[in-house]
Amino acid sequence: MNILSIIENKVNKRALSEEEIRFFIDGYVQQEIPDYQIASLLMAIKLHGMNPTETAHLTMAMVHSGHTMDLSSIEGIKVDKHSTGGVGDKTSLVVGPLVASMGMKLAKMSGKGLGHTGGTIDKLESIPGLTTSLTEAQFLQQVQTVGMAIIGQTKSLVPADKLLYALRDVTGTVQSIPLIASSIMSKKIASGAQTILLDVKYGNGAFMKTIEEATVLAKAMVAIGQTLGRDTRAILSDMNEPLGLTIGNRLEVKEAIATLQGQGPKDFTALCVEAAAVMAVQAKLFATYEEASPHVEHQLISGKAYQTFENFIHAQGGDLHVFSIPSLHETHTELPIIVAQSGYVTSIHALTLGLLSVSLGAGRLTKEEIIEYNAGIVLLVKPGDKVRSGDRLCTLYSNKSLQKEWATQALKAFTIEEKAPKVAISTLQMIQ
Amino acid sequence: MNILSIIENKVNKRALSEEEIRFFIDGYVQQEIPDYQIASLLMAIKLHGMNPTETAHLTMAMVHSGHTMDLSSIEGIKVDKHSTGGVGDKTSLVVGPLVASMGMKLAKMSGKGLGHTGGTIDKLESIPGLTTSLTEAQFLQQVQTVGMAIIGQTKSLVPADKLLYALRDVTGTVQSIPLIASSIMSKKIASGAQTILLDVKYGNGAFMKTIEEATVLAKAMVAIGQTLGRDTRAILSDMNEPLGLTIGNRLEVKEAIATLQGQGPKDFTALCVEAAAVMAVQAKLFATYEEASPHVEHQLISGKAYQTFENFIHAQGGDLHVFSIPSLHETHTELPIIVAQSGYVTSIHALTLGLLSVSLGAGRLTKEEIIEYNAGIVLLVKPGDKVRSGDRLCTLYSNKSLQKEWATQALKAFTIEEKAPKVAISTLQMIQ
Repeated sequence: MNILSIIENKVNKRALSEEEIRFFIDGYVQQEIPDYQIASLLMAIKLHGMNPTETAHLTMAMVHSGHTMDLSSIEGIKVDKHSTGGVGDKTSLVVGPLVASMGMKLAKMSGKGLGHTGGTIDKLESIPGLTTSLTEAQFLQQVQTVGMAIIGQTKSLVPADKLLYALRDVTGTVQSIPLIASSIMSKKIASGAQTILLDVKYGNGAFMKTIEEATVLAKAMVAIGQTLGRDTRAILSDMNEPLGLTIGNRLEVKEAIATLQGQGPKDFTALCVEAAAVMAVQAKLFATYEEASPHVEHQLISGKAYQTFENFIHAQGGDLHVFSIPSLHETHTELPIIVAQSGYVTSIHALTLGLLSVSLGAGRLTKEEIIEYNAGIVLLVKPGDKVRSGDRLCTLYSNKSLQKEWATQALKAFTIEEKAPKVAISTLQMIQ
Repeated sequence: MNILSIIENKVNKRALSEEEIRFFIDGYVQQEIPDYQIASLLMAIKLHGMNPTETAHLTMAMVHSGHTMDLSSIEGIKVDKHSTGGVGDKTSLVVGPLVASMGMKLAKMSGKGLGHTGGTIDKLESIPGLTTSLTEAQFLQQVQTVGMAIIGQTKSLVPADKLLYALRDVTGTVQSIPLIASSIMSKKIASGAQTILLDVKYGNGAFMKTIEEATVLAKAMVAIGQTLGRDTRAILSDMNEPLGLTIGNRLEVKEAIATLQGQGPKDFTALCVEAAAVMAVQAKLFATYEEASPHVEHQLISGKAYQTFENFIHAQGGDLHVFSIPSLHETHTELPIIVAQSGYVTSIHALTLGLLSVSLGAGRLTKEEIIEYNAGIVLLVKPGDKVRSGDRLCTLYSNKSLQKEWATQALKAFTIEEKAPKVAISTLQMIQ
C-alpha cells in the first residue's frame, strides 16, 4: 500500500478501504506523508466524495490518531450536543443546564469563534473568573457532581483533525461533506458520550447556505454516529436571521440567563427546548418527543435549569455578578440604528450582522485577534415587527472609535417592506 | 487574486483566466505558493479538465517561466518533432538526418529514458565520444552548418515544467490531458521551431494505452500549437509492438544506421518516412504528403540522409567505428529465447519487452540508475512470422549475471497461435 495508489483509487472513484484510510491518516500524523500528497488526496475526496462506510472509517482513523475521553467513571447517561455554528448562537449555555438539571450528564468540549460565527468558549470566558481549562480529572469530577462541564478542545484529542483542518483551510478543500462530517464526528466520538445531538444550521449566517446542503451534512453525520454505535440525531435550524436578540459574548450570556429564567426570546427558547427534549428522548428519559417537551419547559419555569447553570458557572470559577448590574453594556461607543421608513421588518440578514459584530470587536477573523467581551449588537426588532420612521432597529456596542460604515452595514441587514411578512412557524426538522 | 480563489474556480468548473494561470505558475516558480496548494489545484485540474484556451495559456505561462531559444540566426525553415515515447523508438535518429538532408533545420532538445520507454539522449550518448551538452552558440552554429543538432533539455528552459512534473509525479496527477499537453508543448514552443510534428503513440508500450486517448492528447497539443501560431500536426502510431527489431541503446543506433542506409525494418522505415514527409509539407517544401513521400524515400536510397547523420554525429564528437565491428553485442550474458511450439507470431507485447530491457540494464527505473549501452534485446521475428518449435524468437544481451525470470518474461511477450494473424496495414493517421 502506498499513498499514490490510494490517490489513484479515489481518482478512479473506487471506495477506499479501512486500511487505506488508516494508512494516510497515520502517515500524515506521523509526518511520513507530506502535505502535498494529502492535499492532492483531499481534493480528490472533495470532488469524488466518500460513501458512508468510508466516512465512518475516516472518522475512526481520526479518533484513533489521539487520546479519547473515558467517561465510564461518570454515573448516568452521558449526552453530547454540537451546533455547526451561527450568529447569536448561545444554545449550549441553555441546553447544557436544561439537560443536566434533568439528570443527564454533559461532558462537553467546545470551540472558539472564528469569522462571523461565535464560539461557546468565548462566551463562557467573557464571564469574569471563569476558566475553560480543567484537568481531565477536574472535568470528569465536575460532570459527576454538577451534571455538566464545558472545556476547550484539548490538544491530545483528534490531532489528525487539527492537521487536516489546517491543510484544508489553505487548499480549498474545506467545503466537503465527508470531510466536514468526519471532522465534527471524530471530535464527538473521541469525547466519549453515548448520545449525540447535532444542531445543523442552514441559511446565510450558517456554514451550509441551504436546507438541502444542511440535510446532506446532517444525514452524513447521523450515518457516521449510527455506524459507530452511538445514538446520533440531528435537528435542522434556520440561521438566515440571528438567533435571539443579541450578538456578542456578554450580551449573549445575559440573554442565556434570561432564557434560563423563562424570559428569553421566543425563537431561541423554542430551539433550546426542542434540543433538550430530543436529547431527553435519546437518553431514554422519555419515550417520545411530545412527552419530553413539557418536562423540559418545566425545568425553565421551575428555576431548576437556572440553578444548574449557576452551579456549573461557579464550579468553573465564574462570577455572574457583572450580569446583574447596568454597566454590562458600557462601551466607549454606543450607536443606535434608526429606521428611516415605516413598514414591516421582513428579514434581518444574519451574516451581515455577524460580520459587523466582528468589526465591533465581538469576534475575530484570525485566531490571534483579541475579543472585546462587551462589544456586540442588541436587536430591538425581529422579523414580522411593525416599525415607524425614527424607531430604533438595534444598538451597536464597541470600544473602538465610531466607524462610518457601521451604520450603513447595520441598516443593510434589515429589509423593511410595506406588507407584513408571513412569519414562518418553526417546526422541528429532525434527521435520525 | 489569490491561489484559493483560483482553486475554487477550478473546483466550480469555471475556466481559469490567463492572469490566474500566470499567477499560479509564476507564484510556484518563485516559491511564493507552496507545494500543497499547487497539488490541490493540479488535482482539481486533473478531475475537472481545462479547455483549449486555458491549456494554451498554461503552456505560455510555462514558456515564460524561463529562457526561450532564439533560432532567428539560423537560415531556413526551423522544424521540430516530438515522440511521446515508446519501446524501441529511435525515430529521431533517422527522421532528423532525413529532414536535415532535405534542407530543413532541426534544433532539437530531447529527454532521457525512464521506465520502459527509451530516450534519444541515452541512445546518442551510447555513441563513443558524443556529447549532448553544447553551449547555445555551438548548438545554433551546428544547426546552421550541419542542418541539425540534438542536445539535452537545458535547465533554463521551462523551469515551471520541471517543478510541476516533479510534483505531479508524487501527487497522482501525471495522467491529465491538459497537463501532459502543456508540458510537452511548452518545451516545444520554448525551443523556438516554426513547425512541430508530434508522434503520439498508443498501445501497451506507450503512455496512452488506447488510440482514443492518444487522439484526445494529439488534438489538445495541436490546438495549443495552432492557438500559439505554430504549424503543429500530429501522427498517431502503434506502440503495442516494439518499433523495429531492437531495444537497447547501441542496438538501436545500429538499427537507425541500417535504416538510414535503406536496410531498416519495414515498420520503422515506414514511420520515419511518414514523419519526415509530413514535416516536409509543414516546411512547405511540398504541397502534399503524396508529393513529399517519394522524395523522402530518395534521401534514404541516395545515401544523403546517412551522410547528414554522419556529419551530425561527428559534429557532436561521436565516433561511429564501434558500430561496424562485431564486438558491439559483446556482453557478459547472451541469452537466446527459443519457442517451444510451432505456429504464427500474432503479437509481441511492447511493454513486457520494454520492462525486460530495463532489467537487462538497457534502461532505468529511477533517474540515478546507470545504463549499460550494450544491453538490450534483438528480435528475430515480427507479428505474422511463422515459427517452428526450436526457432529463436529473440536474443537478450546483458552484463548482469543471468536471471531465471528473464527467459520466462521474454516468452510471455510473444503470442504464438495456430492461425496466421491479419497483419495490419499501417496507414498514416494524422491530426492537424
